[in-house]
Amino acid sequence: MADLSEFDIIKQYFSFSHYGHQPSENVLLGVGDDAAILSSSKNPLVVATDTLIEGVHFPNNFLPQHIASRALGVNVSDFAAMGVKPTAMTMALSLPASDSQWLADFSRSLAQQCEYYGIALVGGDTTKSPCLSVSLTLLGNTYDEGGSTLRRSAAQDGDDIWVTGSLGKGAAALALLTDTFSREEWPCNQTAKENLIASFYAPQPRLDFGIELLALANAAIDISDGLLADAQHIAEQSQSQLSIIGDTLPLHSGLLSHTDPDKIKQWALSGGDDYELLFTAAPSRAEAIVALSDKHQLPCQKIGAVKSGRGVKLLGRDWSGFEVDGYRHF
Amino acid sequence: MADLSEFDIIKQYFSFSHYGHQPSENVLLGVGDDAAILSSSKNPLVVATDTLIEGVHFPNNFLPQHIASRALGVNVSDFAAMGVKPTAMTMALSLPASDSQWLADFSRSLAQQCEYYGIALVGGDTTKSPCLSVSLTLLGNTYDEGGSTLRRSAAQDGDDIWVTGSLGKGAAALALLTDTFSREEWPCNQTAKENLIASFYAPQPRLDFGIELLALANAAIDISDGLLADAQHIAEQSQSQLSIIGDTLPLHSGLLSHTDPDKIKQWALSGGDDYELLFTAAPSRAEAIVALSDKHQLPCQKIGAVKSGRGVKLLGRDWSGFEVDGYRHF
Repeated sequence: MADLSEFDIIKQYFSFSHYGHQPSENVLLGVGDDAAILSSSKNPLVVATDTLIEGVHFPNNFLPQHIASRALGVNVSDFAAMGVKPTAMTMALSLPASDSQWLADFSRSLAQQCEYYGIALVGGDTTKSPCLSVSLTLLGNTYDEGGSTLRRSAAQDGDDIWVTGSLGKGAAALALLTDTFSREEWPCNQTAKENLIASFYAPQPRLDFGIELLALANAAIDISDGLLADAQHIAEQSQSQLSIIGDTLPLHSGLLSHTDPDKIKQWALSGGDDYELLFTAAPSRAEAIVALSDKHQLPCQKIGAVKSGRGVKLLGRDWSGFEVDGYRHF
Repeated sequence: MADLSEFDIIKQYFSFSHYGHQPSENVLLGVGDDAAILSSSKNPLVVATDTLIEGVHFPNNFLPQHIASRALGVNVSDFAAMGVKPTAMTMALSLPASDSQWLADFSRSLAQQCEYYGIALVGGDTTKSPCLSVSLTLLGNTYDEGGSTLRRSAAQDGDDIWVTGSLGKGAAALALLTDTFSREEWPCNQTAKENLIASFYAPQPRLDFGIELLALANAAIDISDGLLADAQHIAEQSQSQLSIIGDTLPLHSGLLSHTDPDKIKQWALSGGDDYELLFTAAPSRAEAIVALSDKHQLPCQKIGAVKSGRGVKLLGRDWSGFEVDGYRHF
């Protein structure tokens, strides 16, 4: 097994037929030709690409099953933020070596995730590279012929600003995984620790919630770059001001034992990798949003309001002067 | 300019509006949201992903404009082999640093190529990585509602086997670029040299030819892995034997001055990166294929026949015993 060719790898690990995952009915031609063919739809096509690179988006020696669940979760999160269900994907996988155990673990996890979300892996490219990376392109159709989606540009003056779940867990989990803190500084308990790390291994994109939110919200984005940076994207594209009240932010419980309040704020405001939904909706939708939150057992917190103006304003006695940067790749 | 964020890079270099490239009419929402939206079509969707990695698919310090033209050319070649026109794409670009001159050169070249082929860049992901890589996912619709394409699996017993253009240029160009030969061994003249290197910098996918070939050929594949490896793909998927006559292979003129005939054969049979079309068609189509070849001023050579059996058979006095391997990434 030491010398698997690219073709062997695709046949053995990425055809997915041996996982009992039946080819999706919209796949007319799957893995194995120069390109894949998907059946047509009257509804517009949604497409998004996301890349995860070892040492940049996850630590070195991350287990292959976690790389798979993280890569798919992060990509599905983009579709959650559009309110659209993904149905097919291609994968560009770059690997330093063809390690059959690694491939078996990675592909088993990817197949399970694909089956869970109902996504068919229809094609891609497997190449040797000094750097391990996974780039997924997801495809899906909108729910109507008009192409309705949640967009960053649709926030309206007077909208409430909401966020799902809790904040700061992406950055806190990374601190745990890379061991960049002392026990005195952050006496995080074992349960909180495990919960944080699990959310990093396999982000839970808010897909079902996002799809139903399409009928209620105006603008939405997923929090991958950090709350403030992602709020800034909505503000820019909607030409509005997002006014956020720091004291209302739902912090992940694992953060609260940290002794440095500034570190907690930094993680929650700019840590990124939280994969929650930040969205805006008319105040008249509040009751329906709370009902949706109950239905999906997903906490939703109102954290501010959309106003005329520009940019993001952070309010609250302990928050307003806080200096933050969004997550920057470069 | 030393500290461009991912958002700055996308806005400045990959929105393409400042190249006079009007958004394609099938792009409902382009770069800048969580996902892009394309208008629907009654015809099935074709999708393919290809990745190019520095040091693997092109030498180190390759100029950015050549990386762009090569990345797009190689990807369009997959669509040529399906007989389908690509209309949109996403890009996953991984870069060691945000060098503004590099980005300007790369994006100018990519925009020119996109405009030439009529492809809209609709989204993607730009990330920092120790390894430079470009992964493109191309999308297009088939020409009819039935989803007609050229496929690897459709070769018929009795078909002629044809190849476009000339063989061996990919491997020969790589030898020139990496300087792995002596002047005595290969006294390649300057014109041939320039011609070979230009074909490596910017492969000319046989897209217009492939689209018209859809009405004439049965099976097709593009020669990216080497003639024999790609013939093997058709043989396997069509459950036929491809019998190829070595002496009929159209060798690139730049190869002929090489003093080692075995090296020439190796480049032509297994070098890969030629991006020509290998296709099979009923003998009754020969006249129409020659006419198509004349129309596109693209030489086409009949190099063998499809028979019952399995695998690829190489015939000819100096060829039949020749040991070759297809290009293997791992």
